[in-house]
Amino acid sequence: MSRIFKAFSQFTLIFHIFKLNKIKLSMIKILSIVIALSFVSNMSMKKKKILFFGDSITRNGELEDGYITQLNKIAQLEGMSEKVEFVGKGIGGNKVYDLYLRMQEDVIAQNPDIVFIYIGVNDVWHKQSYGTGTDADKFEKFYQAIIDSLQSKNIELILCTPGVIGEKTDFSNSLDGDMNQYSKIIDDLALKNGIVLCNLRGEMLKYNQANNPENLEKGILTKDRVHLNEMGNTLVANTFWKIIKERI
Amino acid sequence: MSRIFKAFSQFTLIFHIFKLNKIKLSMIKILSIVIALSFVSNMSMKKKKILFFGDSITRNGELEDGYITQLNKIAQLEGMSEKVEFVGKGIGGNKVYDLYLRMQEDVIAQNPDIVFIYIGVNDVWHKQSYGTGTDADKFEKFYQAIIDSLQSKNIELILCTPGVIGEKTDFSNSLDGDMNQYSKIIDDLALKNGIVLCNLRGEMLKYNQANNPENLEKGILTKDRVHLNEMGNTLVANTFWKIIKERI
Amino acid sequence: MSRIFKAFSQFTLIFHIFKLNKIKLSMIKILSIVIALSFVSNMSMKKKKILFFGDSITRNGELEDGYITQLNKIAQLEGMSEKVEFVGKGIGGNKVYDLYLRMQEDVIAQNPDIVFIYIGVNDVWHKQSYGTGTDADKFEKFYQAIIDSLQSKNIELILCTPGVIGEKTDFSNSLDGDMNQYSKIIDDLALKNGIVLCNLRGEMLKYNQANNPENLEKGILTKDRVHLNEMGNTLVANTFWKIIKERI
Amino acid sequence: MSRIFKAFSQFTLIFHIFKLNKIKLSMIKILSIVIALSFVSNMSMKKKKILFFGDSITRNGELEDGYITQLNKIAQLEGMSEKVEFVGKGIGGNKVYDLYLRMQEDVIAQNPDIVFIYIGVNDVWHKQSYGTGTDADKFEKFYQAIIDSLQSKNIELILCTPGVIGEKTDFSNSLDGDMNQYSKIIDDLALKNGIVLCNLRGEMLKYNQANNPENLEKGILTKDRVHLNEMGNTLVANTFWKIIKERI
Repeated sequence: MSRIFKAFSQFTLIFHIFKLNKIKLSMIKILSIVIALSFVSNMSMKKKKILFFGDSITRNGELEDGYITQLNKIAQLEGMSEKVEFVGKGIGGNKVYDLYLRMQEDVIAQNPDIVFIYIGVNDVWHKQSYGTGTDADKFEKFYQAIIDSLQSKNIELILCTPGVIGEKTDFSNSLDGDMNQYSKIIDDLALKNGIVLCNLRGEMLKYNQANNPENLEKGILTKDRVHLNEMGNTLVANTFWKIIKERI
Repeated sequence: MSRIFKAFSQFTLIFHIFKLNKIKLSMIKILSIVIALSFVSNMSMKKKKILFFGDSITRNGELEDGYITQLNKIAQLEGMSEKVEFVGKGIGGNKVYDLYLRMQEDVIAQNPDIVFIYIGVNDVWHKQSYGTGTDADKFEKFYQAIIDSLQSKNIELILCTPGVIGEKTDFSNSLDGDMNQYSKIIDDLALKNGIVLCNLRGEMLKYNQANNPENLEKGILTKDRVHLNEMGNTLVANTFWKIIKERI
Repeated sequence: MSRIFKAFSQFTLIFHIFKLNKIKLSMIKILSIVIALSFVSNMSMKKKKILFFGDSITRNGELEDGYITQLNKIAQLEGMSEKVEFVGKGIGGNKVYDLYLRMQEDVIAQNPDIVFIYIGVNDVWHKQSYGTGTDADKFEKFYQAIIDSLQSKNIELILCTPGVIGEKTDFSNSLDGDMNQYSKIIDDLALKNGIVLCNLRGEMLKYNQANNPENLEKGILTKDRVHLNEMGNTLVANTFWKIIKERI
Repeated sequence: MSRIFKAFSQFTLIFHIFKLNKIKLSMIKILSIVIALSFVSNMSMKKKKILFFGDSITRNGELEDGYITQLNKIAQLEGMSEKVEFVGKGIGGNKVYDLYLRMQEDVIAQNPDIVFIYIGVNDVWHKQSYGTGTDADKFEKFYQAIIDSLQSKNIELILCTPGVIGEKTDFSNSLDGDMNQYSKIIDDLALKNGIVLCNLRGEMLKYNQANNPENLEKGILTKDRVHLNEMGNTLVANTFWKIIKERI
């Protein structure tokens, strides 16, 4: 409704301008110009819908200190709230094939412009905790299947490496081997599919190398080795914002 | 080629019959009768294509003593070789979502009439051996997705419960709990989707209760607690044959 | 000290009785009677110290509804509080080799008369949850080593089978296979070492078969599939009491 | 027995020498010289017994290309065969508490001078493959108990970090996290107990960084990611020899 109303007001305005200039134009010509201008204006006004597709880390991103909440504040502070809209689609315990099973409903049906895929922690962690982690080769297959489906809908993707399971910086966290391996798979998928990689794992490691001199396993960016504390959410929000800013 | 040739010979034969009877019929009428008859005859002659969709147990089914090899012999002995054709599509280490990922190519593209889905051992076993087993709820979801896809192609399905991981009969095999649970999921899926269940696990347990008085963990139906020996393959072949026979 | 004092008072009392009755007895005779009586009286007066050696289930046994608390009440109700004393030595997460590592301090140094060994749940459970369960053969070895050490101190042992991980009655709880196997190992150890077996697993299964018609996995005897609710603690307390009563 | 016999023959010989030289010495003086000489001669003649206490890697150390076989050759080449004797006590699949359970028989009863403790791979690996790895804190406890027992027998210990499970050099081998953690525990134990550390893991990583440019997971020092090939055995033999040489 409001788009039509805006287009009509613009038409009226332009019509008067042309009249004032005593320029004779057929109504059809004027109308076509108006419609073209209207589209341009609508395009620049339409909010970019950015969707975060992930697990409990993304679910918690919507809490008070969460990274999605923080992104909303950043956008507001930078006066860009009108240009961007954030949608969180995180479910606790999700692995890559859970995303695959719900991508139609939770992503495609939402018509997002950009999707951050932020998955992998449980694919590794559940190997240890439940015996139901994801084989590396299947991780890649389901991830590629998600990429194929979303790219076919012209959604721009950003692939994130999973953060941390344990914050020790000397690669002695129990699952560092797999975390590094699965991050490499995501890195390779980004390269192969021409997609931007957001290396959260690298950023978190860098932060810990500078701020975790005691080699603690939690408490720097996470509350419990995995789930982000406020600082961790801030790191993710800032890292994501750099990528988002260039796209809105 | 041979179908067309058969149809042509039938046409010629019928044409002569009609001629002998001095009945005048337009060629078109005769031809249409011939084609109709030809279809009926072809239908009864067309071999039923039966596909076994599974893991290493099915892969080994094609070996010398394998259950697929044995089924071929049974069909021959019972003079039904012309009516049925067996295709093995087993890959070692496969879990339910591996079947899901390859069902288009390995099942649908093969145009089978009947598909035995024989999966589940690795979904349970890999929890212990690699930490990458399948969560019970995901097992059900992917299994249902396979059912939906194959049923939409009018393929008749037979769902099999996974056999055994260990042959002890007192439910003290390490993975009996999960094997029973996943078998129940398959049983429920069969019921819910109106599909025939082939309870291999039940059959194997029954056999062991009668033939494994020492409560051994292998050597009765399996070589190594999981993979079938000749007797195990015979049990599967016979169990499958009962179901197949009614359908050809 | 108090024993000697009691013996002395008894001696004085008896001496007076004899004196009053004008019976002449040599001091030696009197003394020997006194000592004999004293022993009888001490024996009946000395509390049997019963120690429960286990994991979090035993740790929780000391809580308000816990089985050790309940045993204390039962002993009181049956007027046997003076004869028995209960000591809980349970530590959360303990496996058989944790008991082994702390048996000197937590059992032998406590001088108990009877020890209930109630272990095994974590040896099985941690296979799934942490990848650090106990191999069946090591379970047996460390258990036997505990038996050897405690028997060498003349402590009477009662071996308990571990209860449940999941209360479903159709052996479809994920870890039923191992729970049955480890229970069998304990049963065999009891037999081999001439020790009384307290088959808690059997009792719990029997109770569930009668009281869990919906095949629920928790809520009958446990709060969370493993840790006992009040009813579960009552079942354990009653089962233990039958064994204790015969020994005090 | 043989030492006493040798000492006696030496005494007889020396006695005759002194007699021939018509030198009068009291028997006591002669005897004391004999005993002194006997000790010197025994000391220089006694081979150092070096025992390798470990798992399948040590078991394989006795094969044709094994590190123990190679150590024997090195000792021979360097003309030190007479000074040193190597004993392999490796059993496939062993974890730290297996060593604990057999240390009396397999180490103490063997009277070694030096023991290389080379354990840890299965403590980590079995978490993944069987769910029966060793908790980090129990690993430390049992390891310390072994140290205490062997040190109390005046055996010199050398603690080795476990080699590798996967040879990739970027810490993306699935179990690198734990391997690094358990190596640190061993390092700390060495420090705390004043024992020499032999950092095999460090040596192998260094070798791979120089010789595994393709980041392969096996084939450089191992046949199968864990068990040493000839080159791996050579690396271990050389690393051990440096430590041994200083002690014989």
